[in-house]
Amino acid sequence: MAAAAVWRRGAGWLRSCRANRELPGVPRARACAGSREVVPTCERYAVRRLPFARLADGDVAFFERLMPGRVITGEEEVKPFNVDWLKSVRGCSQLVLKPQTTAEVSQILRYCHERNLAVNPQGGNTGLVGGSVPVFDEIILSTALMNQIISFDKVSGILVCQAGCVLERLSEYLEEQGFIMPLDLGAKGSCHIGGNVATNAGGLRLLRYGSLRGTVLGLQVVLADGSALDCLTSLRKDNTGYDLKQLFIGSEGTLGVITAVSILCPQRPKAVNVAFLGCQSFAKVLETFTTCRAMLGEILSAYEFMDEKCMELVETHLKLSSPVADSPFYVLIETSGSNSTHDEEKLNNFLEQATASGLVTDGTVATDEKKIKVLWSLRERITEALTHEGYVYKYDISLPVGKLYDLVTDMRARLGQNAKNVVGYGHLGDGNLHLNITAESYNHSLLEAIEPFVYEWTARYSGSISAEHGLGFKKRHFIHYSKPHEAVLLMQQFKAMLDPKGILNPYKTLPSAPDRSTC
Amino acid sequence: MAAAAVWRRGAGWLRSCRANRELPGVPRARACAGSREVVPTCERYAVRRLPFARLADGDVAFFERLMPGRVITGEEEVKPFNVDWLKSVRGCSQLVLKPQTTAEVSQILRYCHERNLAVNPQGGNTGLVGGSVPVFDEIILSTALMNQIISFDKVSGILVCQAGCVLERLSEYLEEQGFIMPLDLGAKGSCHIGGNVATNAGGLRLLRYGSLRGTVLGLQVVLADGSALDCLTSLRKDNTGYDLKQLFIGSEGTLGVITAVSILCPQRPKAVNVAFLGCQSFAKVLETFTTCRAMLGEILSAYEFMDEKCMELVETHLKLSSPVADSPFYVLIETSGSNSTHDEEKLNNFLEQATASGLVTDGTVATDEKKIKVLWSLRERITEALTHEGYVYKYDISLPVGKLYDLVTDMRARLGQNAKNVVGYGHLGDGNLHLNITAESYNHSLLEAIEPFVYEWTARYSGSISAEHGLGFKKRHFIHYSKPHEAVLLMQQFKAMLDPKGILNPYKTLPSAPDRSTC
Repeated sequence: MAAAAVWRRGAGWLRSCRANRELPGVPRARACAGSREVVPTCERYAVRRLPFARLADGDVAFFERLMPGRVITGEEEVKPFNVDWLKSVRGCSQLVLKPQTTAEVSQILRYCHERNLAVNPQGGNTGLVGGSVPVFDEIILSTALMNQIISFDKVSGILVCQAGCVLERLSEYLEEQGFIMPLDLGAKGSCHIGGNVATNAGGLRLLRYGSLRGTVLGLQVVLADGSALDCLTSLRKDNTGYDLKQLFIGSEGTLGVITAVSILCPQRPKAVNVAFLGCQSFAKVLETFTTCRAMLGEILSAYEFMDEKCMELVETHLKLSSPVADSPFYVLIETSGSNSTHDEEKLNNFLEQATASGLVTDGTVATDEKKIKVLWSLRERITEALTHEGYVYKYDISLPVGKLYDLVTDMRARLGQNAKNVVGYGHLGDGNLHLNITAESYNHSLLEAIEPFVYEWTARYSGSISAEHGLGFKKRHFIHYSKPHEAVLLMQQFKAMLDPKGILNPYKTLPSAPDRSTC
Repeated sequence: MAAAAVWRRGAGWLRSCRANRELPGVPRARACAGSREVVPTCERYAVRRLPFARLADGDVAFFERLMPGRVITGEEEVKPFNVDWLKSVRGCSQLVLKPQTTAEVSQILRYCHERNLAVNPQGGNTGLVGGSVPVFDEIILSTALMNQIISFDKVSGILVCQAGCVLERLSEYLEEQGFIMPLDLGAKGSCHIGGNVATNAGGLRLLRYGSLRGTVLGLQVVLADGSALDCLTSLRKDNTGYDLKQLFIGSEGTLGVITAVSILCPQRPKAVNVAFLGCQSFAKVLETFTTCRAMLGEILSAYEFMDEKCMELVETHLKLSSPVADSPFYVLIETSGSNSTHDEEKLNNFLEQATASGLVTDGTVATDEKKIKVLWSLRERITEALTHEGYVYKYDISLPVGKLYDLVTDMRARLGQNAKNVVGYGHLGDGNLHLNITAESYNHSLLEAIEPFVYEWTARYSGSISAEHGLGFKKRHFIHYSKPHEAVLLMQQFKAMLDPKGILNPYKTLPSAPDRSTC
C-alpha cells in the first residue's frame, strides 16, 4: 500500500524534473523524498531536460483516436513502464502507447516529430543500463502488442517477426519446427526481439552462432520523422549498397524504432550436453577453456564462468544448490551437435583429460533437458540473485581473456569492506566479464570509488566498457574510454542526420552534443 | 606489341573522357576505336565526368615528395591498374599511389580533398562489377604496399593486419598457427583483405563461418577529408555506441579507405573432407542439401553447385577432368571438424543415404589435401574458364533457394542461340547463384535481352541483384530492384555526409544523386 501511495505522486516527480531546468548545478530538492521506491533519475543524476514540448490534452486525444484502447495514461498503469527492471532508474512519463503495426508507429512518430515530443521506445524493459525507460516525461512507445510472427521458412531457417515478440516465445515456436533462435539470454521470458536487436544483445549462444550483426538479415525501422524504412529482406547475402540495418542494430532506439526483424535461425541441435565443473584457480578456468575449445571444436556452444561468490548468492537468495564441491571458480560448458554418440565421446575425452591433468577437481554432466535447465539456472539466475542484495553496481566489460578476472580481484582489494560483495561471472569464451558490486543501498561515495577506476582499468587493457549491455542512460558519458573522439563525433553526426530534433530516446547512448549542453 | 601500342594512347582516352562532358546524350566518337583491348568505360557507358580537378604537375610533385619511389605515372606501369580483371572496364588514370601507412593515406586524401581530386581506392583489383578501377582519371590509391601483419593472438584467434595483405598469404600464415581465415574465395591469390572487407566479400566459407559483418571486429579507416578513424578494436564484443565500421564494410571504397582490419579467425579444422557428387536434377541438388545439412550438421562447411555447362567449360578451357560420370548437376560438399573418425562416419552415413535414395548417382570423396584441392579447383576455376569464352555477362543473384536455377533455365530459353553459353553455379547453401552468359565479344543487343529482364525476374522473387559482388560501376543503377527508394536516399545522405565533395570512388555503388545528374 505504501508503494502504491508513493506511485501516485506522479505530479510531484514531474515538478521535480521541471525544477532541474531552473537549478543548474544546485543540489536538488528531493521532491520525491518520501519515496521508499526508486529515486527519480532526474534527481539522482545531473541531467537537464531538453526543450521538448510537454504533453498536452490534445496530444492524448490524438493518440486515443489513432489507437483506441491502447493508450495508457493512468499513473498506476504507467508505473511499470517508468522504472527499469533493476529498479535503478525512474522516469516521469505520463503516457504509454501500444501500437500494433509499423504504420501506427509511423503515425505516432510523425506526430511527435511535428510536435517536438520526445519518445522512449521500449521492448521488454529488461535492459541493465537505464536505456529502456524515460529520463523525464518522454512518451513511452511500447512494442508489447507488436507480437506477431510474420513467416518462417524451414528450408532457409529464416524467421520474420514483429519487434515485440518475446524471445522465449520465438524459441518455443522454432523448437517445434526443428530450429532455435541464434541468441539466448537470462531475460528471455520478458525481452522482445526488437529490443534485443536495438541493443545488439549478446547472451549465451554468441560463442557458437555469432553476433546479431551476422544473423539479423533484415529490419523494418521507423525513423524519427515517421518515415518507414523497409529493409526486411530474407536473404542470407545482399550486397546492394550500404547495409543500413547495421546502424540500427545496437543504436538503442536513438536512431529509429525497429518494428520487424528478419533473422537467420540455426537448426535445433539433436544432442545437447552440459558439464558443470569446479576449478581451483582462474588460470585453470582459462586452461580448461583452451583445452575444451581444441577437443570439443565445432560442438562447443557455450563456455561460461562464475566465481564462488556468485554461487553463494544463488544458494542464499534463490535456494539453488551447487552440484559440485566448493570451488573458487565454476565453469559451465555446453555442447550442441548432430550426433549424440559423437558428442558424448568428445565430451568424455575432454573431461577425462581435464580431470587427469588437474584442470577441474569436480564436476557433473547433464544430457537430459531438465537437468540441463537446472545447471543453466545456476549461471542464468545470478543477475536475479544479485538484486536481492540491495543496490547493484553493474559493469559489463570486454577484456583480453587472460586479464578478465584481474579486474575483479583488483576491485575487491580496492573497495574492501565498503562493498557488500564484488563478484565476477560471464561469457568467458567471448572475453566478456560481468563485474557486479553490491551494497545495501545506493551509496554515492562507493560509486566514486568504483568509477572511473573501473573504466580506466578497462581502457588500459584496450577493453570495452560495455561488451553487450549498451550504454543506455548510465554509461553514455563513459563512451570515450572505449571509442576515440573522432568516432563519437561521427556518431553524433549520424544522430543529428537521422533525428535532427533529437526526439528518439534522448539522454541515451551518446554524450550530450556540445551544442546541446546549455539547453 | 599491338597491345602495348594501344596502351600508349593514354592521352587519346583522356580526350575521349573529356569529350563526354560536351556531348550529353550524343553517341560518342570511338576515340579508342583502334583498340583491340578493352573499350574505355567512358565510351561504352553513358557516364559523364564529374567536375573534379584535373591532375597537374604540382600534384605529382607533391606525392613524389610525400612517398618517393611509390608514385607511378608511366602509362605502361599505370595500365594494369586501369583495367579490371575481367577486362570489361577501363579507366584513364595517369597516377597510381602506393602508400605504406595509414598516415600516408591520410595525407593523400587530405591533399586530394583540398584539391578536389577524385580517388579510386584499389586492393587486388579482382572485383567483378567494375568497382576497383577508375572510370575517368581518378587517382588510384593502391593498398599493395600496406601488407604487414600487425598482430595475431592465438588465444582469441584475432588477427590484426594492414588492408593490403593478400588473402592467401594470410591463410598460409594462419594455418601455421592452427587457424584459418573465416573467408575464402577463388581470387584469394590476388585479392586484398581490405578489398574483401570493403566489398563485404562472401565466398566459400560463409555457410559455416558467417559474413564479414560478424567476423570483422575492428577497422581503421581514412575518411574523404583525410581524417583517420581508429576503430581497430580486437574485442569479440563491444557495444559502446553505433557500430561505425559496419558502414564501411561493403561500401566499396565510397565512404572511406580501409587501411587496417581486425578479424576473428576460426581454429583450423583437424579433419577436412570433400565429396564431389553428380545429381540428375536441380530438385535432387536441393534435396541433397536438405539431407546433408541435417546429417552433417555442425561439420558442413560448404555446399556448392555447378551445372554441366560449367563442367564443360573447365574441361575445355582449363583441361580439368570431371571425377564423376556426366550429370546435369554437380555438388561439392565440404566438411570441417575436429575428429576425423566422427566426421568420416557422418559423411559416410550421409553418402549411403543419398545414394540409396537416388539423390546422387555418382561421386567421389577426398580426404587428403592434394585431392581436395583438385576437387575444389573444378568449382573455383569456373570464373577463370568463363573468361576464355570471350565476353562474359556476370550476374550474382540471391534468391530463395528453391527458385535458384529457374532463372538460369528461363534465361537460356529467352536468349536461345544469341548467347554462346548460359551457365549457373554458386553457393547454394547461401541461396547465391552466379549466372553467367557468354558471347564471342561484347554485344549491346544481347545485353538488352538480358537486362533488365534478369533484375525484374530477381525482384519478382524478392531476391538481391548482387549477393556478394557489390554494385561497383556496372550495377549501381539497378539498386532499386533490391532496395526501396527511401533506403537509397538515406545511403546518398550518408555519402554526402561522409564525403561531401564526392571524391571517393565516384560513379560507384550508388546511382548519381539527383543534384549531380546535370554536372
